[in-house]
Amino acid sequence: MDPEFVTLDRWWRAANYLSVGQIYLMGNPLLHEPLREEHVKPRLLGHWGTTPGLNFVYAHLNRAIMERDQPMIFITGPGHGGPGVVAASYLEGTYTETYPNVGLDERGLERLFTQFSFPGGIPSHAAPETPGSIHEGGELGYALSHAYGAAFDNPDLVVAAVVGDGEAETGPLATSWHGTKFVDPRRDGAVLPILHLNGYKIANPTVLARIPEEELVSLLRGYGHTPYVVAGSDPAQMHADFAGALGDALDEIADIQGEARASSEPTPRRPWPMIVLRSPKGWTGPQEVDGLKVEGYWRSHQVPFANARTDKAHRKVLEEWLRGYRPEELFDEAGAPAVDIAELHPEGDLRMSASPHTNGGVLLRDLRMPDFRDYAVEVDRPGTGSAEATRVLGGFLRDVMAQNLDTFRLFSPDENSSNRLQDVMEVTDRTWNAEIREYDDHLAPDGRIMEILSEHTCQGWLEGYLLTGRHGLFSCYEAFIHLVDSMFNQHAKWLESTRRISWRRPVASLNYLLTSHVWRQDHNGFSHQDPGFIDHVVNKKASVVRVYLPPDANTLLSVGDHCLRSRHYVNVIVAGKQPARQYLSMDDAIVHCTKGAGIWEWASNDAEGEPDVVMACAGDVPTMETLAAVQLLREELPSLRIRVVNVVDLMRLQPEREHSHGLSDADFDALFTRDKPVIFAYHGYPWLIHRLTYRRTNHENIHVRGYKEEGTTTTPFDMTVLNEIDRFHLAMDVIDRVPRLHATSGAARERLKDALIRHRQYVRSAGEDLPEIRDWEWTGR
Amino acid sequence: MDPEFVTLDRWWRAANYLSVGQIYLMGNPLLHEPLREEHVKPRLLGHWGTTPGLNFVYAHLNRAIMERDQPMIFITGPGHGGPGVVAASYLEGTYTETYPNVGLDERGLERLFTQFSFPGGIPSHAAPETPGSIHEGGELGYALSHAYGAAFDNPDLVVAAVVGDGEAETGPLATSWHGTKFVDPRRDGAVLPILHLNGYKIANPTVLARIPEEELVSLLRGYGHTPYVVAGSDPAQMHADFAGALGDALDEIADIQGEARASSEPTPRRPWPMIVLRSPKGWTGPQEVDGLKVEGYWRSHQVPFANARTDKAHRKVLEEWLRGYRPEELFDEAGAPAVDIAELHPEGDLRMSASPHTNGGVLLRDLRMPDFRDYAVEVDRPGTGSAEATRVLGGFLRDVMAQNLDTFRLFSPDENSSNRLQDVMEVTDRTWNAEIREYDDHLAPDGRIMEILSEHTCQGWLEGYLLTGRHGLFSCYEAFIHLVDSMFNQHAKWLESTRRISWRRPVASLNYLLTSHVWRQDHNGFSHQDPGFIDHVVNKKASVVRVYLPPDANTLLSVGDHCLRSRHYVNVIVAGKQPARQYLSMDDAIVHCTKGAGIWEWASNDAEGEPDVVMACAGDVPTMETLAAVQLLREELPSLRIRVVNVVDLMRLQPEREHSHGLSDADFDALFTRDKPVIFAYHGYPWLIHRLTYRRTNHENIHVRGYKEEGTTTTPFDMTVLNEIDRFHLAMDVIDRVPRLHATSGAARERLKDALIRHRQYVRSAGEDLPEIRDWEWTGR
Repeated sequence: MDPEFVTLDRWWRAANYLSVGQIYLMGNPLLHEPLREEHVKPRLLGHWGTTPGLNFVYAHLNRAIMERDQPMIFITGPGHGGPGVVAASYLEGTYTETYPNVGLDERGLERLFTQFSFPGGIPSHAAPETPGSIHEGGELGYALSHAYGAAFDNPDLVVAAVVGDGEAETGPLATSWHGTKFVDPRRDGAVLPILHLNGYKIANPTVLARIPEEELVSLLRGYGHTPYVVAGSDPAQMHADFAGALGDALDEIADIQGEARASSEPTPRRPWPMIVLRSPKGWTGPQEVDGLKVEGYWRSHQVPFANARTDKAHRKVLEEWLRGYRPEELFDEAGAPAVDIAELHPEGDLRMSASPHTNGGVLLRDLRMPDFRDYAVEVDRPGTGSAEATRVLGGFLRDVMAQNLDTFRLFSPDENSSNRLQDVMEVTDRTWNAEIREYDDHLAPDGRIMEILSEHTCQGWLEGYLLTGRHGLFSCYEAFIHLVDSMFNQHAKWLESTRRISWRRPVASLNYLLTSHVWRQDHNGFSHQDPGFIDHVVNKKASVVRVYLPPDANTLLSVGDHCLRSRHYVNVIVAGKQPARQYLSMDDAIVHCTKGAGIWEWASNDAEGEPDVVMACAGDVPTMETLAAVQLLREELPSLRIRVVNVVDLMRLQPEREHSHGLSDADFDALFTRDKPVIFAYHGYPWLIHRLTYRRTNHENIHVRGYKEEGTTTTPFDMTVLNEIDRFHLAMDVIDRVPRLHATSGAARERLKDALIRHRQYVRSAGEDLPEIRDWEWTGR
Repeated sequence: MDPEFVTLDRWWRAANYLSVGQIYLMGNPLLHEPLREEHVKPRLLGHWGTTPGLNFVYAHLNRAIMERDQPMIFITGPGHGGPGVVAASYLEGTYTETYPNVGLDERGLERLFTQFSFPGGIPSHAAPETPGSIHEGGELGYALSHAYGAAFDNPDLVVAAVVGDGEAETGPLATSWHGTKFVDPRRDGAVLPILHLNGYKIANPTVLARIPEEELVSLLRGYGHTPYVVAGSDPAQMHADFAGALGDALDEIADIQGEARASSEPTPRRPWPMIVLRSPKGWTGPQEVDGLKVEGYWRSHQVPFANARTDKAHRKVLEEWLRGYRPEELFDEAGAPAVDIAELHPEGDLRMSASPHTNGGVLLRDLRMPDFRDYAVEVDRPGTGSAEATRVLGGFLRDVMAQNLDTFRLFSPDENSSNRLQDVMEVTDRTWNAEIREYDDHLAPDGRIMEILSEHTCQGWLEGYLLTGRHGLFSCYEAFIHLVDSMFNQHAKWLESTRRISWRRPVASLNYLLTSHVWRQDHNGFSHQDPGFIDHVVNKKASVVRVYLPPDANTLLSVGDHCLRSRHYVNVIVAGKQPARQYLSMDDAIVHCTKGAGIWEWASNDAEGEPDVVMACAGDVPTMETLAAVQLLREELPSLRIRVVNVVDLMRLQPEREHSHGLSDADFDALFTRDKPVIFAYHGYPWLIHRLTYRRTNHENIHVRGYKEEGTTTTPFDMTVLNEIDRFHLAMDVIDRVPRLHATSGAARERLKDALIRHRQYVRSAGEDLPEIRDWEWTGR
């Protein structure tokens, strides 16, 4: 072996030894005695297959960091290779600094080994517990989008991202290679993808490992990369080859960035380097066990052999495997790594396991915020006027953007303007590093509006950006945000886990602005109608999720400001983009949003006592229909005492013991009464309101209207009729549920029914709403 | 223009004219008079930009079909180009055959135009209402996976799939190109992808249109294709070029298939042809409007100008645009297409709009089914023995596969064996058309177990396979099935819509087998724990969704048989793969599954009257914990009368008026009583049980335990403890809720609590469950 790599190879052997130890051992960590049954864990878990390759890459990255003082972080796409990244952070000293209990001695080693994937211990992935990780890798597909998210606006950083060849088959990963067209060599850092072809998934070969190299190289060039292929299994040769490839790649990154940064104009996009590492699965592990091929085959994917505790022959294989790393050369008598190994890492924060970028909360700074009240829509009388709520928010976001041009980005799947946030383009452009033509509109490499027609990539970029200490907002059509349901799950679980880890600092919240919502998908039809993301979100821990349904522009401004300032939540904001009536002045909006749910006194006539009925609403369209129903009822049944309650913060409905935003039972009863009928017009699937309120005193009287999968190509108002959440149905619901009206309201009910029939006829014939519906405004009586 | 293309060009002009008419007009369809305000729709909807390209492709495919008698179907990735596919099916006569009201005359034209994206009319996509569609294209990403699904086991079929350059940015589409490694030229049909680069999305250029052609070609070669690029805007040249490219591509397909089919051994994989069509967005539309670039730009994405009804200048642009197609040459006086145009299509079923493959129900045949009872697990005494439920199902699936080797496939993201369905490999292999090495295991081009590490691709393939009249099953880890939430939405909505369309025939159900479920993800940890897919599914219409939670192997067999025979549903089956106790003999299992929910008398002791408490359970682990709790209570409090109710068919819980499987209130009360406490141990998030039962008499007394996002790396039993659904908590719940026990049960409660504490201590120290927990079996007292 080239003397240059001797210590590095020793480091690699140590990391591999520590990895195998984590998977198999709970005692005798240095093999000071022969391996006995009680030294082996009773249940063997973990993924060996990918681990030696990860350790190999880590060792070489460290070498480059030291050589170049190049800040880097490490994204472990095959996050199941947790033993590897834990071993690396242990050898770098970070693990012991973070968890002093796991010291650099034999007792510490035993703890390190035992805790791995063990009850009460640590997960088997690059989980939140792992120093240096922003990417658990439990679910596959997001290594590169996370890596790009981390690299944006971090010009000095190189994000090394290992992509497993299993992960490479996922859709989100397959498109995330196109990050090459969205990274700016002047202002952003670089992503260095390392495609790790070890050939196998759980039980199958991988596609990219089984196509001719020419085809693979063609694919990667097509993605905008220059691939450097390093293939083999002989450590000496592989060290030399990988070090060479890595050096070339880092030189090329420096050259691309250098060229771009020396120029005052954007330079043409150049292919970015990447590395293809073709190494055996389970490299350095046993060749064969029980006569079956293991190294270089899928059998080494997880635990290569399972009976090492009880089966003597297996235990012998394990002992030989471990002793093959010659631990006595790697650790001293006390169990500490040998001095040359212990010192073979960069200093301080340059250690990838200690990079502050991977604990983004420590780098997080508050946004510079304009005063959201300055963007208020004038509201002379509630229920009049017209504004597009998201467009108003867009004005505010423009100035948030202008004041935070290095730490704030907007993300959207080609819907930023469709969602009415186009004012932001007054201060920045859309990110675009592919070809730009002279008639193009607001495209630039350093644009900060990130649009690719991939919700997965938007979400992944934003997560990476937030987890490294920055801020952002993701705007999306409501129905299609379900595309990232699973990514949301992973992020919410990451937030929940990190809440419980003392050294992890809170990061900025992940803010969703969902618009083009279910009630305005009349034109796109049934396939675009789904308000169920809220249901998905509220399945996660109350400690990390918030849902807001501002009914108009000023409440949206107030909610938007609040969410951008918040920390460590997922905030879901659902708001309309179409021209709509406005209800609350800015002062009233602030009060209302602060309460989260409240009585709209100007729309209620129950001041002198208990109401006959509560009409509750959440969401912009349900709010309008509720108020229109109130107006109809005022005209038809003037003696009826109606209370209007609007809910902005959906979590207010839950009991306070279940969600920190939850109203106390007394407060809830004060709003919704203890025994009066409540007609609740809700934006989404109606059963969620029951779920949130079923423990409340008055739950039995809560009657909820919402979207019930009735929709087609029709008018916006007809969407509400089909789902029986329109003004006429709501008014009839009131009549049906207030007992004292039963005798006297027959004629009124008939008139409401007639109006519905007229509407249906009118819609069918002319394709338009009745004029009085289209032009509805609150009459203020 | 080459005389060969004159009529084809006329057909194309007619299709374009009909497309513009659908977007803009509601009267004067043949421009027999000058265009007036009332002829133009008040609200303009639809996507013009992609449509002329779709029409162009359709015309050329028709030409090839006629020339070669080649059966083809057409997948419209940019499904928003609905006006195009509707126009094509109208010109082919299929539309009028399907909807006689829309005749081939002026009145029919007016109806055709008016109904498009109009209240009470048809959606703007290639929706279920569109003859010849199996792919709505409302949500983007699935054109190629649907196309491959349709091509599998249809050796004579060519599936032409247009991929929009917007769609090409999505993750699911980006990986679905790898279908090239899973299609068998001997036994399957071919997919001909046509990447349509018109350059723009809603408001941005597209990535693939703005990379150098060399890079694009490299990418497509890397995906395993030989791309033929056709670029330009001059119709005469484009006709010649596209016809040439299409001819070459179809020749090449024939050659690949011919070579493979002439050989008795699998032949090496060859690159499949594909076409890149680079044509202007909004081709043949207005160049500029109001001085702004429209043709060849994103402004023609939807409606190129919006005020044609009220703005005279815009109306003039529209009229000139329409007259530019010279409708008087294309339609006769009565409004029928000119004879040469009307006749320019293949005969009968060869018309793509009339292909029976696109109304798969007409081709669907029942599976040949072995008798599932033959696979029964022997159960001597309930709650004893041991079997892996999904492995038992695997034996049954093996023989289903063996008897249906041309119409049944299994789909899985590399988890078929992990999910214990490996017995199927006795009769077929895993589909694999990339390189095969000598030590590989059950890989073959004609394998019928489809494994790619992409849930999106698995789902898309299966959907395409089902919609063209075949059968299948998708097995997946429970947590990660959320990856396809949005695809499930689209498929469920397709099923619901087609239920309402008389000419659409029912297709086979989409069957999910979810295993590696939340209660057995103790080793993978928190990131792998999510039972929420059920919640997502039950948001959709009751008419198309079914959820089953069989508690053991025999019930899984019974449920599996039922689901494979069912039609037009989405069936979700959640079942365990780990060794577990068995409860019901096959006879009992059949009775129990037929009822869907029932009292387990052998576990109950309330025969002589009303019970003190009902212990309900759904799901394998909750069932085991419930029975263990019953056993503890029998020992502690022998006088307590307990009824055990097990629920297999979750939809039984809903009121019968909300779901056809719902129990009547009387039947529900007979199971769950009207007033006794019910302790319900449920597999998933507990609130779903409340949602399903909140209208039931006894709802107030139903206390649900389920997964509440408490999980980590621990033991399986500890997972239940963390979520308080374990035997001890359940038994304590009973004690706490049966009033007559309060005075006498203090000591028993203490003992249960002690056992919990002992368990926690034991887990923390040794990483194992207490022996009596691990070895639990029902004692049958």
